[in-house]
Amino acid sequence: MIITTKNTQVKLAARPIGLPNETTWRIEHNPLPTELSEGDLLIKNLYISLDPAMRGWINAGRSYIPPVAIGAVMRAGSVGKVMASKNPSFTAGDYVYGTEGVQQYAVSNGKGLFKVQKNLVPLPTYLGTLGMTGFTAYFGLLNIGQPKAGETVLVSGAAGAVGSLVGQIAKIKGCRVVGIAGGAEKCRYIVEELGFDAAIDYKNDDVRKGVKAHCPQGIDVYFDNVGGDILDIALTRINLHARIVICGAISQYNNKTTIKGPSNYLSLLVNRARMEGFVVFDFAKDYGTASLQLGQWLAAGKINHKTHIVKGIENFPTALMRLFDGNKMGKLVLQVNDDD
Amino acid sequence: MIITTKNTQVKLAARPIGLPNETTWRIEHNPLPTELSEGDLLIKNLYISLDPAMRGWINAGRSYIPPVAIGAVMRAGSVGKVMASKNPSFTAGDYVYGTEGVQQYAVSNGKGLFKVQKNLVPLPTYLGTLGMTGFTAYFGLLNIGQPKAGETVLVSGAAGAVGSLVGQIAKIKGCRVVGIAGGAEKCRYIVEELGFDAAIDYKNDDVRKGVKAHCPQGIDVYFDNVGGDILDIALTRINLHARIVICGAISQYNNKTTIKGPSNYLSLLVNRARMEGFVVFDFAKDYGTASLQLGQWLAAGKINHKTHIVKGIENFPTALMRLFDGNKMGKLVLQVNDDD
Repeated sequence: MIITTKNTQVKLAARPIGLPNETTWRIEHNPLPTELSEGDLLIKNLYISLDPAMRGWINAGRSYIPPVAIGAVMRAGSVGKVMASKNPSFTAGDYVYGTEGVQQYAVSNGKGLFKVQKNLVPLPTYLGTLGMTGFTAYFGLLNIGQPKAGETVLVSGAAGAVGSLVGQIAKIKGCRVVGIAGGAEKCRYIVEELGFDAAIDYKNDDVRKGVKAHCPQGIDVYFDNVGGDILDIALTRINLHARIVICGAISQYNNKTTIKGPSNYLSLLVNRARMEGFVVFDFAKDYGTASLQLGQWLAAGKINHKTHIVKGIENFPTALMRLFDGNKMGKLVLQVNDDD
Repeated sequence: MIITTKNTQVKLAARPIGLPNETTWRIEHNPLPTELSEGDLLIKNLYISLDPAMRGWINAGRSYIPPVAIGAVMRAGSVGKVMASKNPSFTAGDYVYGTEGVQQYAVSNGKGLFKVQKNLVPLPTYLGTLGMTGFTAYFGLLNIGQPKAGETVLVSGAAGAVGSLVGQIAKIKGCRVVGIAGGAEKCRYIVEELGFDAAIDYKNDDVRKGVKAHCPQGIDVYFDNVGGDILDIALTRINLHARIVICGAISQYNNKTTIKGPSNYLSLLVNRARMEGFVVFDFAKDYGTASLQLGQWLAAGKINHKTHIVKGIENFPTALMRLFDGNKMGKLVLQVNDDD
């Protein structure tokens, strides 16, 4: 078998200080191997997941997974199509979810690959609601946040991929749900299309007043995607035994100096409350349950989502920035090949 | 019945910004009522508990209990002797624990009073190991920190009233225990007299290096009495699923500006860890259990403690400062009357 296709890859060229820029990435066009080894398969990547967590993966230092090495293909969740296989578990034409990185093609030994069905939902959904994004919302809210019917759930990054699902799942569970998002259009979207009870526009509103007005009974669960000042404001309004779920801190990821810690953390003492972090990978053995439940809610129209697709692997560096400047709606996905 | 004794009282004159000073307190000498109403009793306070929490009680604003009002007698835990009683539950000569405030005498209706026995332990112990101090250590460590045998427990304020008990209880539970304290004498005390495995002298050692050296397996439980930089250092060395118990933040109580939040709080995410606050009052229904267990450990010589007694109610303002400058060892108590 001869494979002649050229593989465009995005590699980490240098660790950024602050926002990633043109020196962070190197785009290479490399040949694919001409022959597959026994057990291997060739995947044509179709969609690449763009996630705030990527910013952390390119920092040096200990974290929940090793940093992407300088010169390595950038790590990314992906959905692709099997083009050729010498692995008995996969057949050409299969669609697979994996972590195949920001490249157009990948050779895999099958480890970490899962087959997905194209006819059930659009393929990018396996990166969003029925993928790590959905699982992050599901386990973070339900297992760490533990909302009870009638409680108030506040979500930041509420029009984002994870936040928008968190809010909808909290509504399904009978909570009052307030979202914080940037701009009037996102706020309209989460209230009118996703069914949040209220929205606070952090770009135009006074968040402190907004939280006070829209969480009149206080906050029982705060699902934090942003950190910084908004986390501090939330801490001033938590109820007794509140749970603060630390999912991310996108406002802080590109800091050039120290991260802003929550000055109001002693509210945890006053309110006998907890702040807890989690990593979705820890729930891997329950992904099946989450997938089934999220799929049912999706099919029943109980959850809604948007996918923002950017085309062209060469646009990875600029597309990624949309996570940080907020210029996207819902799940951000990079399409790196056509499915033909 | 005529009571003629003059009552010296310490009242809150003004809310301090930063450290309390001479303008914070007003010492008054007031007459006692000449007659007890039906149901009331007169207590002669003997010992007053001095606690870091007092600094919080004199701030304005929402907390776990209302602030002490300007002009009111300063709130304090106390042990005293019943001098006269028109309350059927108490008899002259009874010793009682209560929250009778920084004053030499108090008239009470009996609410919140508990009888204590002078012949079992010295009376100040009911403010320390067998009082709120002991209960704070017991419930904070065991219920919030949930240490397991073989785990590493790090304690700040380790030579203090609460911290010294936390470390000893953790040793009883089979943990490796490392304490952070100020000065060579306190460090010697917690290792040689209290049985801590190691001590870090924050006044003379590099705490970061000390934590690394003495917690080679990382930190499973961090019991925090101090906040600030030490909390941030601890966050860099926590293990997966670590528990950080927020008991206090004495390094921050006298800040004139914003409290320093923990910049490294995202370690909670990386390590799937939690930071949780608590207030001892929530465990009131289990005080009996804690008291029995602590009393047994005390009797068996498994826990040790020191009481630092300052005499004279007029010395309250200066005695209180010892909590913040570290110039005391163990439980700080103010003796306001002789037991005669």
